[in-house]
Amino acid sequence: MTDPVRACLFTPGPINTSDGVRRAMQFDMGSRDPSFIEIVRDIRDRLRTLAGAGPDYTTVPVQGSGTFAVEAAIGSLVPQDGRLLVVANGAYGRRMVAIAQRLGIAVERIEWPETEPCDPVAVQQHLATHHEVTHVAAVHCETTTGIINPIAPIGAVVGAAGRLFMVDAMSSLGGMPVDIAGWNVDCLISSANKCLEGVPGIAFVIVRTSSLMASHGNARSVSLDLHAQWEELERSGQFRFTPPTHVVLALAAALDALAREGGVLGRERRYRSNHRVLLEGMQATGVRAILRPELQSPVITAFHYPAGPRFHFEVFYRLLAECGLVIYPGKLTEMDSFRIGTIGQLTADDFVNLIAGIRSALDTMGIEVPVSA
Amino acid sequence: MTDPVRACLFTPGPINTSDGVRRAMQFDMGSRDPSFIEIVRDIRDRLRTLAGAGPDYTTVPVQGSGTFAVEAAIGSLVPQDGRLLVVANGAYGRRMVAIAQRLGIAVERIEWPETEPCDPVAVQQHLATHHEVTHVAAVHCETTTGIINPIAPIGAVVGAAGRLFMVDAMSSLGGMPVDIAGWNVDCLISSANKCLEGVPGIAFVIVRTSSLMASHGNARSVSLDLHAQWEELERSGQFRFTPPTHVVLALAAALDALAREGGVLGRERRYRSNHRVLLEGMQATGVRAILRPELQSPVITAFHYPAGPRFHFEVFYRLLAECGLVIYPGKLTEMDSFRIGTIGQLTADDFVNLIAGIRSALDTMGIEVPVSA
Repeated sequence: MTDPVRACLFTPGPINTSDGVRRAMQFDMGSRDPSFIEIVRDIRDRLRTLAGAGPDYTTVPVQGSGTFAVEAAIGSLVPQDGRLLVVANGAYGRRMVAIAQRLGIAVERIEWPETEPCDPVAVQQHLATHHEVTHVAAVHCETTTGIINPIAPIGAVVGAAGRLFMVDAMSSLGGMPVDIAGWNVDCLISSANKCLEGVPGIAFVIVRTSSLMASHGNARSVSLDLHAQWEELERSGQFRFTPPTHVVLALAAALDALAREGGVLGRERRYRSNHRVLLEGMQATGVRAILRPELQSPVITAFHYPAGPRFHFEVFYRLLAECGLVIYPGKLTEMDSFRIGTIGQLTADDFVNLIAGIRSALDTMGIEVPVSA
Repeated sequence: MTDPVRACLFTPGPINTSDGVRRAMQFDMGSRDPSFIEIVRDIRDRLRTLAGAGPDYTTVPVQGSGTFAVEAAIGSLVPQDGRLLVVANGAYGRRMVAIAQRLGIAVERIEWPETEPCDPVAVQQHLATHHEVTHVAAVHCETTTGIINPIAPIGAVVGAAGRLFMVDAMSSLGGMPVDIAGWNVDCLISSANKCLEGVPGIAFVIVRTSSLMASHGNARSVSLDLHAQWEELERSGQFRFTPPTHVVLALAAALDALAREGGVLGRERRYRSNHRVLLEGMQATGVRAILRPELQSPVITAFHYPAGPRFHFEVFYRLLAECGLVIYPGKLTEMDSFRIGTIGQLTADDFVNLIAGIRSALDTMGIEVPVSA
């Protein structure tokens, strides 16, 4: 295999990792060896602390993509006679509905337009009249658009109503403050390869230990049984089934790097700087962001296609990729969009280059800058 | 994190990988990028060919451990009104039963002692009187003991009876000849980090395309839906959910290395040489293998504990691990055992070292060599 070109990934993950993270994958470790067990134990503790959870929570790693961990959480925590309410404003909220349906779990939803945040008042009203709901699930940063949902006030109303609160923090943990205890979150799901800047292949669930213990026997799957996974980790320190050892070592190195960057606040500062350069540069090209600025996360931003018949996303993508600038297709259901991520090992300079590349690509396509809206 | 000691992994995976395989993980690739899509397509084709399957089969990769792919296969291929027969002689056969039970799939089993191979005649007789069985599952190399099961004759009787045949070839594919078409296998499951000598984090199912197409709507899970995963790979070339990109690049490099070693035959030759040095050396120490030689695979071998009160596995393990020699605990239900793997980037010299280390460890424990049986 020839070496692929080193590219800048302006995507919501997999992202550009540091040399240190990739170097950590140069070691083959036995998955049942005490030294590996110690690394796993340390990662579990650090992730819990990072999410603002005390010792009454536990971290359960799950092999696979983030969706595997979301399915493990839903399929393990919601009991046979439970009912899940999903508050959704994008593809990842809708995916939680699809997972519950597939698992035969009773589910209902409140849905907002993809460009509007979920509304805690509507959740409160729904719970007041729907006593059958036992669990509520929401997405912190919905990467469909990059919108930030108001998890703290939603958590407050869910807690006041005595329901369990599950949060998909896939693309926020590590890049934005997350406060499980303060936000009244019972279960938070995230992944190694987004704001934590590890490599893909492992995700995890940070869950209130008492809720997890009460879930014994619920799981609809052997592989995605969160309780059994936790039980074995507590008993022997080992995963039940072969863990992606190199990916786990990369995550340990990534957590070291996060600490060196000044933790979440230091990292958020860099991401916000990236985001500022991106927005200012895009504004000058006339390409419009889909969300109002106050709704945007510093993680990923969705943009409208430039108007007119000359813009073809595939051509635009290819022209940028040829310069090592990898952007991300859109996922909105109601309008054409593309997305640009601002996470991973990228700095303001990379976004200056990206903006120059975008201007050049538009020029090559015969589209005058600033583009018409 | 300090660099862990470079250890020899005498385990059934994760195994020692080559420098080239680990070097392949030094690149961050976008999972939706055309160059990554091309790599995935190529891997799928090569795995299919490696397993002896023609273009009427397709490879569907699944993130996670091998068990995830086994669960994806069972949960996707066996329909609501189907019934699975598992022929089992170890932990991995029994795990398939547990998976089916958890998924609510009707399942029955024929079980042999862990030290005896499954018997095709018993399978034939069972199928003749159990018309409700639609699918039969077996394990090629049962790593509980390292025993090889007679997949070809079992496949013949399953095929003659018109049932679908599913084979767990987790620890055989790449290190022993596998012939999907010749053995009448409809679906074969394996993993990157055993005889293929990739890193853990991805497994795959090689399945007859017509059987997979007929399975539409069966899957009990969103994450482990084999049909949906295949459909998206065929449509866009992409995984449905973030793949472990670095692990996939390592697998591509591992397949290159396998070809350079002379394919399966070349690799099997090295593994058999490793196995021969191991058996001769162990015989001289008096530590007895559990299986008769003709039942043993060149993948992993189970040994009895030396007799007497001075042998403690934990001490034995630690003494070896301190010398960078990582062995594997036992998994037999009826007797104390430990296991030694002969796969991965290991050669006869490594086994000469291992035997010396074992003699020294026994000596340190005050156990005279040759040990008493």
